[in-house]
Amino acid sequence: MIPVRILGTASVLPGPAVTTAELCARVGRDAAEVERKTGIHTRHFAPPGTRAADVAATALRGALEAAGVEAKALRRILCVTSMGGDVTTPATANRVAAALGLAGSCDAMDVSNACMGFLSAFDLAARSVATGLGPVGIVSVELLSRTTTPEDPRPYLVLGDAAAAAVLGTGRPGEGVLGVALGNDGSFPTDVVLENPHATGKPERMRFLTPSKEMTRVALEALLRAARSVLAEAGVALGDVEWVLTHQPNGSMLEAILRALDVPPERSVRVVDTVGSVGSASLGTGLDRLLRTRPVKPGDRILMVGVGAGVAYGAVLYQVGG
Amino acid sequence: MIPVRILGTASVLPGPAVTTAELCARVGRDAAEVERKTGIHTRHFAPPGTRAADVAATALRGALEAAGVEAKALRRILCVTSMGGDVTTPATANRVAAALGLAGSCDAMDVSNACMGFLSAFDLAARSVATGLGPVGIVSVELLSRTTTPEDPRPYLVLGDAAAAAVLGTGRPGEGVLGVALGNDGSFPTDVVLENPHATGKPERMRFLTPSKEMTRVALEALLRAARSVLAEAGVALGDVEWVLTHQPNGSMLEAILRALDVPPERSVRVVDTVGSVGSASLGTGLDRLLRTRPVKPGDRILMVGVGAGVAYGAVLYQVGG
Repeated sequence: MIPVRILGTASVLPGPAVTTAELCARVGRDAAEVERKTGIHTRHFAPPGTRAADVAATALRGALEAAGVEAKALRRILCVTSMGGDVTTPATANRVAAALGLAGSCDAMDVSNACMGFLSAFDLAARSVATGLGPVGIVSVELLSRTTTPEDPRPYLVLGDAAAAAVLGTGRPGEGVLGVALGNDGSFPTDVVLENPHATGKPERMRFLTPSKEMTRVALEALLRAARSVLAEAGVALGDVEWVLTHQPNGSMLEAILRALDVPPERSVRVVDTVGSVGSASLGTGLDRLLRTRPVKPGDRILMVGVGAGVAYGAVLYQVGG
Repeated sequence: MIPVRILGTASVLPGPAVTTAELCARVGRDAAEVERKTGIHTRHFAPPGTRAADVAATALRGALEAAGVEAKALRRILCVTSMGGDVTTPATANRVAAALGLAGSCDAMDVSNACMGFLSAFDLAARSVATGLGPVGIVSVELLSRTTTPEDPRPYLVLGDAAAAAVLGTGRPGEGVLGVALGNDGSFPTDVVLENPHATGKPERMRFLTPSKEMTRVALEALLRAARSVLAEAGVALGDVEWVLTHQPNGSMLEAILRALDVPPERSVRVVDTVGSVGSASLGTGLDRLLRTRPVKPGDRILMVGVGAGVAYGAVLYQVGG
């Protein structure tokens, strides 16, 4: 076990809610059909000029408040993003720290692993805390609306903006990460890509490449293998896990994962309907909703499973402390 | 102490060496004056079309060979870059893993913290290893020539391309990180910035903003405070530290750090002369040169100190094992 405690969480949806109907009207698509296929009714688009760092800082400030921890107590900030943050260099995490009023009291860096970034950062934060460096703040911030255009409806109709944060600190006895299995497999053709304009020399958009059922099958298999691996490591049966959170790029992927794991919807938290596909902020938003709205009690286990471009995938099993 | 062992290192300079004289001729500057000011005689520019992931994989493969570790034994790959990698999403680390022939045997992610990225990743890797996840490969790859133009000579005349890697594994008794002090202070105006084209909507270049002596002074002060902090933590006098490695953005910063620490040049390794300013790959290149060319022996202490845009700064004190 990695002894660590989730001290607090928060999530933020910047800007106004935008309905699927509105977007479908712009691109000439049938809203009912898109909603049925994606499971998404609304998402939020941050107003032009919004800084990712400010949205991230709002989320992290909320998590610190929930934790009852002062920002200056943080020893590390991990800022996760899939769209390169506000600036490519230096790390956007610097601006997050500055927006929290910090000036050198902790280190700060950016982490990126597509939609798995939140779980990657969760693992890094847990290991930092377990080796004496804590509390650690992690925040996923995605302003994915910046990377889309109505001319390419597939990403445009599902992606949204969001931030989600957690503050991790020292675990009490019996509390922490019971098992972790994270993997990346770059040997598959990529299904989602945002090229780097510094490399291509031209503007780039998030692109959903030709869908591949074979790839989805392999990714899902890898994810399920990871979930089973952490359960075996912890000696916990899946049926005994109280809460299961999944990455939610759309309603059908969420349902496929829950179905494959045989988890009834009431043991999970569905967020994709109202937040859209928010990259690495999806799992963090789900975690925040879970801890704020459900009767999570000491001893409960939370299984977090994710999959993302790369292919990145994995699972973390966390036991709630007293 | 964080028990960890540097199992192997390697560094790579992609493409041909380009002399300062050549570049100065292109921009109409006096080569002797530029060499005197920067301390840089040559740097390498990767040929167009070079993939950062391939350069990174070459470096990491070299570190694995030096370590006598099979790539498939790696449990994690941290890929550090300041120019956003080959693609913004997914993580370039996926491609590094794939180039090493890996397919899901470890996780992989990108980490960015300007020129401090290598030390940040070193710390993350050490804490991963110490909590049971190892060996971990870290690789800094910078193709900074992609971010410059002759029209802006200041970056163009100093930045270069390079990659440096290290493989960390379980430490033996008395071996590992004796002290670590890393910090970021985003409250200062940034001196080096590469804007994110996904945010600005236009191509961007690495820019050196108005130099600020005050900022350099503060950054240097922070770095020295960090160095003294890890030495105090370890109960080691600076005069007793066998080797001191510093970030080397140019010859004068290197000299200023060594002078401030009162370290004679023979206890350090100067790389900037021939590799140029290579961002996060600078410290890793120095570490590789040190371990390959100097009489480093069991019990020796290596102090690594760095500073970068953000402001990011810090120090790690490592004790070599038997």
